[in-house]
Amino acid sequence: MEAYLDNSATTRVFKEVKDIMVKVMEEDYGNPSSMHLKGVQAEKYIDESKEILAKILKVDKKEILFTSGGTECNNLALIGTAMANKRAGKHIITTAVEHASVHATMEFLKEQGFDITYLPVNEYGVVNAEDVEKAINDETILISIMYVNNEVGAVMPIKEIAEVIKKVKPSVIFHVDAIQAFGKYEIYPRRMGIDILSVSAHKIHGPKGNGFLYIKDKTKILPTIFGGGQQKGMRSGTENVPGIAGLGVAAKLVYENLAEKTDRLYELKDYMIDELSKIENVRINSKKGKESAPHIVNASFIGVRSEVLLHSLEDREIYVSAGSACSTNKKVESATLKSMGLKADEMESAIRFSFCENTTKEEIDNTITIINELLPRLRIFKRK
Amino acid sequence: MEAYLDNSATTRVFKEVKDIMVKVMEEDYGNPSSMHLKGVQAEKYIDESKEILAKILKVDKKEILFTSGGTECNNLALIGTAMANKRAGKHIITTAVEHASVHATMEFLKEQGFDITYLPVNEYGVVNAEDVEKAINDETILISIMYVNNEVGAVMPIKEIAEVIKKVKPSVIFHVDAIQAFGKYEIYPRRMGIDILSVSAHKIHGPKGNGFLYIKDKTKILPTIFGGGQQKGMRSGTENVPGIAGLGVAAKLVYENLAEKTDRLYELKDYMIDELSKIENVRINSKKGKESAPHIVNASFIGVRSEVLLHSLEDREIYVSAGSACSTNKKVESATLKSMGLKADEMESAIRFSFCENTTKEEIDNTITIINELLPRLRIFKRK
Repeated sequence: MEAYLDNSATTRVFKEVKDIMVKVMEEDYGNPSSMHLKGVQAEKYIDESKEILAKILKVDKKEILFTSGGTECNNLALIGTAMANKRAGKHIITTAVEHASVHATMEFLKEQGFDITYLPVNEYGVVNAEDVEKAINDETILISIMYVNNEVGAVMPIKEIAEVIKKVKPSVIFHVDAIQAFGKYEIYPRRMGIDILSVSAHKIHGPKGNGFLYIKDKTKILPTIFGGGQQKGMRSGTENVPGIAGLGVAAKLVYENLAEKTDRLYELKDYMIDELSKIENVRINSKKGKESAPHIVNASFIGVRSEVLLHSLEDREIYVSAGSACSTNKKVESATLKSMGLKADEMESAIRFSFCENTTKEEIDNTITIINELLPRLRIFKRK
Repeated sequence: MEAYLDNSATTRVFKEVKDIMVKVMEEDYGNPSSMHLKGVQAEKYIDESKEILAKILKVDKKEILFTSGGTECNNLALIGTAMANKRAGKHIITTAVEHASVHATMEFLKEQGFDITYLPVNEYGVVNAEDVEKAINDETILISIMYVNNEVGAVMPIKEIAEVIKKVKPSVIFHVDAIQAFGKYEIYPRRMGIDILSVSAHKIHGPKGNGFLYIKDKTKILPTIFGGGQQKGMRSGTENVPGIAGLGVAAKLVYENLAEKTDRLYELKDYMIDELSKIENVRINSKKGKESAPHIVNASFIGVRSEVLLHSLEDREIYVSAGSACSTNKKVESATLKSMGLKADEMESAIRFSFCENTTKEEIDNTITIINELLPRLRIFKRK
């Protein structure tokens, strides 16, 4: 039985997503910038997709901006606001456990003369809102914190951080990378005090190469890609109409019966954690229950290197990730696990299982059975 | 009879392109960064696409970089090389008739302290290689010239310019925006002395939201999007695998029987120009024959505003463009037509007809007939 448990890396597109993309590509293939009917038809898909997304977030359509994916979202959010607000200060706050597309962009901004504070996290990967408060200074212009950590599923105290910003320095722009959270949580940026939100399509059964930003009206931000002035000059380039249409459909579908679906995922997660906890020398790196995301279980199988277990599971048609799969193949130490205080042998043996709404209990059961079968053998092998 | 004559704005995807995209989205949906089989399968599509493109251009696979489209290609080519080479100088040469994605990026670089020389063009939109030579100075680091102008089809003397660079200052990086040329010309960057080449997928019946750069090995260029280090760190972000696969298939198909297809397009173009020339008060803005691109006819129908003729043609299911359709709807004066020396009434009445390999003589005949029918009425209307 095949089990694809790497949904935080990417997901299979929904049939309905594929269908609308095919329709747009074959029938309504116009350039939305064209003045004629074919352009108008194409534009309509963009508008419809915006409407779906705005409705989900309870924001205005004009606050939705389409990009080529989560990485571009995070780059534009950070570079765009840093450059637009640098006269007000050059200090930025983030955490030590952000996705590479935030971390690497921060390092770029550091080279440009910005001062970056990387906040620590606790043993479960969660940043403390009080630490955020203490880090804010006269120069702070931007705070970027992820909603859900991609490696262990840690949920950050977004609301509390927003309240801290409101209390201490309301001019600070609050960016939230919601790439692992969108489609799993009801997110209302206005009510929650989020100024900019990043979302990727291919994590929610939408097409790769697509994402969107919510940017609160009147937020000071500059474009990072220049050209024909599409999307009110904020992101030039012919819009990826089939992709945008697919993203809209995917978002609509993942938010249907959300509570029901996440309840089931929480159950699955807790079940898997319970089962894994029964195995000797396994450290569970994700919290049970609602303090951690419903779809991510990270565990260290001490004594077996991640890649070894990953490939052994692969042989049995179970697909998982060693640490975050969103970085390229090259082996790098996980900043998240390290920041959580894991020891070397715990980091080296960490595996991430990530679910989607179609993941079944049978797949989890099968995975547990196979792990129980494989582990003793792999551990003996290691000792040799 | 419907006639889509706006193929320089965008094209309909080939059936084979759609087919492979559906296959990748439904079956081989893995993240190429994943270490397991699903990742390996996804990576294979990227590799195959690279191989196709490298073969067409007669370059090395590792010199191909995928992006989210032509606009990102031009942005990365210009900003990436400018930033990487600014210690060697801050002077850049381009023309007055580049696409907005080059022009607007140049204006951004100007704000960053770069000195931009915009070279003039002749009455047919062609830049002079001698002007390029004269413009090169000690500070020049980059020259960016389009292969085919998107508005009138003017073909730039790319080889001569490359020779000038080789003769006068070989350290200068030569970027060519080939977005309107790829799929119409055999382009061999090495032989032609091109260091960086921009190509868009949706102009060649590939998917929107995709493009690629040829970047000559060892060219000094910095990334502009940061993150997980995909594509050897030059363009982070999960690769748009279905799009990349689609781009490869599209490129392969457009280059099949190329000479035969372009011969037919040249015939169509010359035929249309001949027919339009018979109409009173029409100025043809594109050259006949091989001195201009095979797929673009630009003409001014003096006395009728572009939008009026465009919408009248639209009512008859003929889709054309007023000037360049790659800028957003807002009316802006065409820099190309202005640089070519057109008078106000010639600019205001310019229409671009652009063909693809499926455009038929019947469509052109029908278009000519309808224009002949519409023009007298529209011109009377104007006089009222």
